[in-house]
Amino acid sequence: MREAYHVELDNLAENLARMSSQVADAMERATRALLDSDLGLAEQVISDDVAVDNARADCEEQAYALLALQAPVATDLRVVVAALHAAESLERMGDLALHVAKAARRRHPDPVLPEPVRPYFAKMGEVDVRLARRAEDVIRSKDIEVARSIETDDDEVDDIHRHLFTVIMDKDWPHGVAAAVDVTLLGRFYERYADHAVSVARRIVFVVTGQMPGSSGGSEL
Amino acid sequence: MREAYHVELDNLAENLARMSSQVADAMERATRALLDSDLGLAEQVISDDVAVDNARADCEEQAYALLALQAPVATDLRVVVAALHAAESLERMGDLALHVAKAARRRHPDPVLPEPVRPYFAKMGEVDVRLARRAEDVIRSKDIEVARSIETDDDEVDDIHRHLFTVIMDKDWPHGVAAAVDVTLLGRFYERYADHAVSVARRIVFVVTGQMPGSSGGSEL
Repeated sequence: MREAYHVELDNLAENLARMSSQVADAMERATRALLDSDLGLAEQVISDDVAVDNARADCEEQAYALLALQAPVATDLRVVVAALHAAESLERMGDLALHVAKAARRRHPDPVLPEPVRPYFAKMGEVDVRLARRAEDVIRSKDIEVARSIETDDDEVDDIHRHLFTVIMDKDWPHGVAAAVDVTLLGRFYERYADHAVSVARRIVFVVTGQMPGSSGGSEL
Repeated sequence: MREAYHVELDNLAENLARMSSQVADAMERATRALLDSDLGLAEQVISDDVAVDNARADCEEQAYALLALQAPVATDLRVVVAALHAAESLERMGDLALHVAKAARRRHPDPVLPEPVRPYFAKMGEVDVRLARRAEDVIRSKDIEVARSIETDDDEVDDIHRHLFTVIMDKDWPHGVAAAVDVTLLGRFYERYADHAVSVARRIVFVVTGQMPGSSGGSEL
């Protein structure tokens, strides 16, 4: 029974790792679609999202199977529930990448981003993707130090995000309200994606170690 | 065993109902704080949020107790997991009300909202609060028709939210970029709150009936 439990838990972790990789790819492509006004890439992110939703449904089924067949208690039980929550966050990260791709598609062939904010989004995209790839890493390597590095990266996204606001709120912003609205929403998507990545990393640390790190993160406006 | 299970499940449902009521109060007060630039009310929402977080932790503990002591299978198991997800959405609704309250506090004593968008927020606040109160209703009355009405109300919030964008994107918007950014983020908070309320209602229908209604909702930009 214990052995069957660990085999099934490994399968569930493998699925979470694959979801992390999927949502990292999605955000990488969505960011390129956004920066290069690449409609084909945007469409690909949009059509690939269903695979993330399916992977999440698979994780839920595996978690149910673990709970129903193994009836875990104490830490084992919390580990399975943590995996359920991680799957939910990963699906949400996929949705946020999808929102970015849809913004790129909506304005095509016009660029969504005025020139001065492009570097911010290139950077936020880079960090977001790194966060999701680290989440995958943590699951596969069970290296807790990697998990901890995720929180530092999240701080970086928050800093860029804050700075972005000072750029668009500047009295001399020449790109108008519509562009500022797009930038505001897109900035929010990148920031939330990073928040969810931190939440996933924390859950994964728990899945791997049975111990929850620090206090809970989350978006502060 | 079956009887103990149902007693504990009723306790868990009672806690979810109380959380629904807390986050409805929070959004009602946050909206008034926003519309009336009422700093005291904003502070109250901000300090009350910890009670929502605690209630969510209580729900998790009750769910763990149910899973560990009763080892439910099949539908019973899914009902407990649905309650866990509902508690997570309710906590997030509390966070969104908190964001609204913080926006009111940040700009105090200035109003956050330019005059022409105030009615939109008054209306979105009203519908959001009604959604959360209906979620509470559904849990207590187990009336599935009420649960279904929640989706109609969510459509109303989406409509107002879309219309709000046409107002701030209008070439003649005279209130500048900073106000537009505030309005964009606040609009997003009200829209996400409604999305989560729909998700809670769906989970609750499942907790009450053992059947999940329709396909999954969620925010489409």
